[in-house]
Amino acid sequence: MKIYLAGPDVFLPDATEIGRRKVDICARHGLTGLYPLDNAVDLSGDNVSLTIFKGNQAMMDAADAIIANLTPFRGPGADAGTVYELGYMAGRGKMLLAYSNDPAAYPDRVARFDQVTKSASGHLTDSDGLSVENFGWPDNLMMIHALDLHGCSLVTPKRAPADIWHDLSSFEACVGLAVDRAKSKSS
Amino acid sequence: MKIYLAGPDVFLPDATEIGRRKVDICARHGLTGLYPLDNAVDLSGDNVSLTIFKGNQAMMDAADAIIANLTPFRGPGADAGTVYELGYMAGRGKMLLAYSNDPAAYPDRVARFDQVTKSASGHLTDSDGLSVENFGWPDNLMMIHALDLHGCSLVTPKRAPADIWHDLSSFEACVGLAVDRAKSKSS
Repeated sequence: MKIYLAGPDVFLPDATEIGRRKVDICARHGLTGLYPLDNAVDLSGDNVSLTIFKGNQAMMDAADAIIANLTPFRGPGADAGTVYELGYMAGRGKMLLAYSNDPAAYPDRVARFDQVTKSASGHLTDSDGLSVENFGWPDNLMMIHALDLHGCSLVTPKRAPADIWHDLSSFEACVGLAVDRAKSKSS
Repeated sequence: MKIYLAGPDVFLPDATEIGRRKVDICARHGLTGLYPLDNAVDLSGDNVSLTIFKGNQAMMDAADAIIANLTPFRGPGADAGTVYELGYMAGRGKMLLAYSNDPAAYPDRVARFDQVTKSASGHLTDSDGLSVENFGWPDNLMMIHALDLHGCSLVTPKRAPADIWHDLSSFEACVGLAVDRAKSKSS
């Protein structure tokens, strides 16, 4: 079983090392991890970003499943590139798994960056007057329910780990779920 | 031709009115606009968010194309729910169109919220040391090239309009592109 390893991990200073650790965890569970090519492309070449896109899309097409790192990135929600990939894999009918190292509910995440106001009826809005989703989920409902219906529910730790970018406990929990799901499908 | 109208527009105080305006613009061009159900669901019922998800997914499955509003939402990048839907439609092989009412390049957007540092080699990082994508695009390369390859390139205005949430000029440009593309496919 091949798993595409999506996440803003590719933007970390030690992106290649994190990728190696994730691929090793997959291998220990008998799976093949496919890590995005963002850091394996010659940055001095032409059309670098297009080369990365095509390589990542080919990897997704070759994979049976995705494990997406939906830990909040530059704001209250997940990294856009990762979310695009989660949607793409859903559209292709692949198995979806994801984790977030931040278990906080979405309104609490928004409140870190902006003032959230509650109306008499309980409706939440931000300082621009835009609604703040308040269904008890950590992030946008489209991702949460896609995971519920096309794979396994979002994995979160009870508490955010000290190092949200390097703690791979919830990632490894996703790998375990993928193995269980693959076994139950084949039996 | 049916077009799914994705965007954080559903979070605006006048979400229903914006949806009506978008559907009207589609109709004037001979297209059928399908606007997400987030505001048409009984909020007092059970499983509200799951009902919204299932309704939106069924609408996407019924649509031939998507026009996604990728205007930055609560941070430097597009709304996660919208990006999920763009990815889903790409995975389903549908035609992709999108606009952003903010034409700024991604590093400039990040610099509004955080300090962006440039290394001697020109590499950009944020205050956490994470890379800032710097290919000249307004948002993550996965969305930008998905649009290039599976539809039409991201539409942006020369300058951000005064009201980024209500100006529909770039939306209407996408509708025009969808009509042209549909004609060239059928001829």
